[in-house]
Amino acid sequence: MSTFRAFEVTGSRQFKLVERELRTPLPGQVRLKVESCGICHTDVLAAEGLRADPSQPLVPGHEIVGVIDAVGEGVTTWQLGDRVGVGFLGGQCGQCDPCRRGDFVNCTDQPQMGTTVDGGYAEAAYARASGLVRIPEDLTSVAAAPLLCAGFTTFNALQSLDISPGSLVAVQGIGGLGHLGVQYASKLGYRVAAIARGSGKAALAKQLGADHYIDSLAEDPGAALQALGGAAAIIATATSGASMSPLATGLALHGHLVVVGVAADPISVNTPDLIFGQRTLTGSLTGSAIENEDNLAFSAARGIQSMNEVMPLSDAPKAYEHMLSGDARFRVVLDMTA
Amino acid sequence: MSTFRAFEVTGSRQFKLVERELRTPLPGQVRLKVESCGICHTDVLAAEGLRADPSQPLVPGHEIVGVIDAVGEGVTTWQLGDRVGVGFLGGQCGQCDPCRRGDFVNCTDQPQMGTTVDGGYAEAAYARASGLVRIPEDLTSVAAAPLLCAGFTTFNALQSLDISPGSLVAVQGIGGLGHLGVQYASKLGYRVAAIARGSGKAALAKQLGADHYIDSLAEDPGAALQALGGAAAIIATATSGASMSPLATGLALHGHLVVVGVAADPISVNTPDLIFGQRTLTGSLTGSAIENEDNLAFSAARGIQSMNEVMPLSDAPKAYEHMLSGDARFRVVLDMTA
Amino acid sequence: MSTFRAFEVTGSRQFKLVERELRTPLPGQVRLKVESCGICHTDVLAAEGLRADPSQPLVPGHEIVGVIDAVGEGVTTWQLGDRVGVGFLGGQCGQCDPCRRGDFVNCTDQPQMGTTVDGGYAEAAYARASGLVRIPEDLTSVAAAPLLCAGFTTFNALQSLDISPGSLVAVQGIGGLGHLGVQYASKLGYRVAAIARGSGKAALAKQLGADHYIDSLAEDPGAALQALGGAAAIIATATSGASMSPLATGLALHGHLVVVGVAADPISVNTPDLIFGQRTLTGSLTGSAIENEDNLAFSAARGIQSMNEVMPLSDAPKAYEHMLSGDARFRVVLDMTA
Amino acid sequence: MSTFRAFEVTGSRQFKLVERELRTPLPGQVRLKVESCGICHTDVLAAEGLRADPSQPLVPGHEIVGVIDAVGEGVTTWQLGDRVGVGFLGGQCGQCDPCRRGDFVNCTDQPQMGTTVDGGYAEAAYARASGLVRIPEDLTSVAAAPLLCAGFTTFNALQSLDISPGSLVAVQGIGGLGHLGVQYASKLGYRVAAIARGSGKAALAKQLGADHYIDSLAEDPGAALQALGGAAAIIATATSGASMSPLATGLALHGHLVVVGVAADPISVNTPDLIFGQRTLTGSLTGSAIENEDNLAFSAARGIQSMNEVMPLSDAPKAYEHMLSGDARFRVVLDMTA
Repeated sequence: MSTFRAFEVTGSRQFKLVERELRTPLPGQVRLKVESCGICHTDVLAAEGLRADPSQPLVPGHEIVGVIDAVGEGVTTWQLGDRVGVGFLGGQCGQCDPCRRGDFVNCTDQPQMGTTVDGGYAEAAYARASGLVRIPEDLTSVAAAPLLCAGFTTFNALQSLDISPGSLVAVQGIGGLGHLGVQYASKLGYRVAAIARGSGKAALAKQLGADHYIDSLAEDPGAALQALGGAAAIIATATSGASMSPLATGLALHGHLVVVGVAADPISVNTPDLIFGQRTLTGSLTGSAIENEDNLAFSAARGIQSMNEVMPLSDAPKAYEHMLSGDARFRVVLDMTA
Repeated sequence: MSTFRAFEVTGSRQFKLVERELRTPLPGQVRLKVESCGICHTDVLAAEGLRADPSQPLVPGHEIVGVIDAVGEGVTTWQLGDRVGVGFLGGQCGQCDPCRRGDFVNCTDQPQMGTTVDGGYAEAAYARASGLVRIPEDLTSVAAAPLLCAGFTTFNALQSLDISPGSLVAVQGIGGLGHLGVQYASKLGYRVAAIARGSGKAALAKQLGADHYIDSLAEDPGAALQALGGAAAIIATATSGASMSPLATGLALHGHLVVVGVAADPISVNTPDLIFGQRTLTGSLTGSAIENEDNLAFSAARGIQSMNEVMPLSDAPKAYEHMLSGDARFRVVLDMTA
Repeated sequence: MSTFRAFEVTGSRQFKLVERELRTPLPGQVRLKVESCGICHTDVLAAEGLRADPSQPLVPGHEIVGVIDAVGEGVTTWQLGDRVGVGFLGGQCGQCDPCRRGDFVNCTDQPQMGTTVDGGYAEAAYARASGLVRIPEDLTSVAAAPLLCAGFTTFNALQSLDISPGSLVAVQGIGGLGHLGVQYASKLGYRVAAIARGSGKAALAKQLGADHYIDSLAEDPGAALQALGGAAAIIATATSGASMSPLATGLALHGHLVVVGVAADPISVNTPDLIFGQRTLTGSLTGSAIENEDNLAFSAARGIQSMNEVMPLSDAPKAYEHMLSGDARFRVVLDMTA
Repeated sequence: MSTFRAFEVTGSRQFKLVERELRTPLPGQVRLKVESCGICHTDVLAAEGLRADPSQPLVPGHEIVGVIDAVGEGVTTWQLGDRVGVGFLGGQCGQCDPCRRGDFVNCTDQPQMGTTVDGGYAEAAYARASGLVRIPEDLTSVAAAPLLCAGFTTFNALQSLDISPGSLVAVQGIGGLGHLGVQYASKLGYRVAAIARGSGKAALAKQLGADHYIDSLAEDPGAALQALGGAAAIIATATSGASMSPLATGLALHGHLVVVGVAADPISVNTPDLIFGQRTLTGSLTGSAIENEDNLAFSAARGIQSMNEVMPLSDAPKAYEHMLSGDARFRVVLDMTA
């Protein structure tokens, strides 16, 4: 093929199916024949024009799995035919000061897939070699896609903490991220409390590995966590400062409230809640490409599975709206091989 | 002597000099002939009646140095004549779950000197053996007193972090705590930025070891810190959430905003400031008695000195008001040997 | 009853069944009606007279579970009828410098059960309150006993390391400690390699959770581990420096060789193996009583099970010899309720 | 100039002065006009032919400071005229798995200056851009050179540990590395014990910041350290396993014996010394280029100074022999600007 189909954002929540020319990848890049792409809430950044130049068309999508079908100049460690993924971070530059510290997540010259550069709502995509993630054979492309961002974000938040085996870990929000977070926390040996609005997700949460379920409409989550002994960590996936702030009261001594969802409103805590008990409020972003490989290996070995609703590329606008509605159970994934 | 003089709080900021009977220390306690007691802003808790039973008279003061002159039943590791200190935490119970974890600061049955039990605005005081801190010979009692709380709080905040040598550490507030924090940070090998309101303390801050001075009235401290590369840690001594909140923008990647001052209003931060850069907001309280001995040993070895205004016990009410005024340079200490 | 039966060591590997008078526990102690006691290789210390005064009779045994039937003066946090355990460390003094640091394992005045004080090859035992471990309801006394030392030693070695989820962890020696170590490592989310002499334990190791089995007679364990990517940690349970030393070559970059078995001969490593790759050789002992409660809670929740051969107290000498023979599969436990 | 002078190793401890053609740096490389080069004991590797192909001439030297006078293709972050250094590690590849983890020290495709590629006993040198270290203006080229390896090795060993302020740190060997290690440890706020053979270096050690001096010929260093409370860390610079092994007995609880000197003979410790006290034996190598910049910044700010004997390039063979003799006080540095 010499062209490929892609969905471009043309206005607020407006998508347009276009035919694009295939091009040779730039030096340091590879080109992917896309097999799948997950739909993430962060795609809102693209779909609402929150990007450098909203007048330019942009292809959203940053949970991309594909097969390398062209390799740019200077790329020596990846081959044609390799099945690889790219998550939100599109590959470090290797030269800025954070990169020189090995802190690739904070690279000052890193594309964000589907937000600052074209992403994966398409049959083809381009990515820096440094951003590529090898996909284990025993994960299908559809299964792997949501693990690259939704899964990785929660996995990385958990693995970056040093909390004791068997500690209570709470996951706030049982959606795209949270339903994976519960599984990771359980498979890492933690006692898990799932927190969600209403009782509708209680049975599922238990099935995913939660030991406890807290309905935040029926009881104060902070008090409920304290009744369980207090949480060593709370992974807060809600994108609302107002809903995250009260969670701090549910932390155990030395507990960590880990914010993984960017919210429009600030998070606010009382200083005695921090000082007496030495509690911590911290932010966690996705990790580096090789840490994502760790994540996929762990997920494959331990049977972490995203619950996916699968649609063909042609349904991308519908898939996006479905994600936005909050009704998806729990991740919508585009399957380009369908 | 069979009686001793003490100042009791009798109402809001009202003190009364009383004569009390000396008693035998309870089991597990010692009695001190007090030699000095620092005046700390937290004494406000006592002086404003924020305590269990405000109808009961209470002797404030939790930066106490004295000589043991009676030993209660079961106390085997301290002797008559030992010169010791007691800080804010009056000794762990040893039996609650935090104590069983060695987390003595969070003991659930621990007196707070001068707040829940009588403190050191007096010629004699009583303290649990587990709360005692050995005073090095080369520190006078007046020199040691403010190190037991003001010094220890900042020392402990710094030592509990694992930040690289030469990193930028900011100290917000150049008062009782901050003027010591600057010295500790410098002697621990950090590059130090002092932050205070107005330019009046600039020369002194440099003299205490600050490499940089930021006048928070003249410039935004967050921006000023970023211009210096960002702070690996900010020790926030101000007792105001509103003044601490903006500091988060001055943190380097992976930086820590450490709150040591209890504030009446919450601290509030934007989630992207936490997530992008993996920054942390945490609280630090004073540490255990033996860590306070570490602090005193370090202070003595490295010449950390509190700048003290010294007054006799009879001036306690005046000393308290002077502390409250904010004009003290920088710590007021009662000298019972005067 | 006013007397109880106990086995005393009377000479090298000589035991004598005696009838002893029950006494009131000392201040700070409790008395246990013993329900079970595991037989540990460390009992050799007692049985071979490696103790303070070998002329004194001593009751071995430090994996003790029983019910409190008398409480000494000053013990307020434990009640008659509580089912509790005591492991190797018999309770911290709370007053020495390590205790003041919360480092109870290194208490300078701590009895070692069955080694410096009488242990659990008996119907009754005495223990400091500070050494007691609450037993979860869902563990039988026989099931719990070996977890108090064999289990705890490996659990604690693993939990004190901060290694990434999914990392390769090797367990050397599939015996009393190792068969539990494999289970813990697996349930904590690690990829597990079991190392033992011969192929006889391969099937069992896999069943316990091992992903890989290395027969150290058939291949060099260091090379075999490197072929698997190198071990982030190796838990070495063999009591032989000569067999542990070569393992260092099997460590991944930044890997830890954790020695939990005291050996008569030294452990010896080449400095380049440490320097190039920043590898570490460390020792791990059992932990504190409350950490043992964490261990039991984790074990109960995750189904960690010691494989036990159970015998009545009257068979203690036989049980001891069976443990010594190396043929036990895998832990011998005395059941005093039988 | 179109040629430059360099010393090549031609046989065991044989050097030959040659004239070489200047060439254009390879892609990713820069060329340096060398200003200084320190002489390190590791140069023995080159001088004794312990390298890939001893038949090839090789220029030793890995403490190189120079000015960039040519820039290879693809190098964008360094400019002509920049004054930079290169230490032992010649720049990471950025693509291997350790590099993808930010673990540049363990890059699998990294030149070692003066050992696997030509080094700095020359007027010109070539180095990968990723290995370059910016030199602060306030350090002369001669002052900076030994800090790039001798200084950095000890700095990095200290900074990679997380030990409490005021802890006792011992430095074994007061030579090229050790005389810097004493200064670093002191400026980082530790209490410092210097260990050397004989009493000759006692006065100097104190002057460099040591609080204690241990003559290992007159007393057992392990016992001497225990008399001081035990060392939280011992930096062992001796290149002899036999001399490092006994030091383990001088460690405090949880102490670290850090091996920075590669020895021909193994290091050997008794397992009880590791297990009872949870002590650690570890290796430390130099760090990454940006960490070396941290080191130089710290050294400049805190006045860390290598004591250097300076010689012109033409004296390189003599300088090398002087280093080997052990009589250098304490570092020999070639000055190409002389």
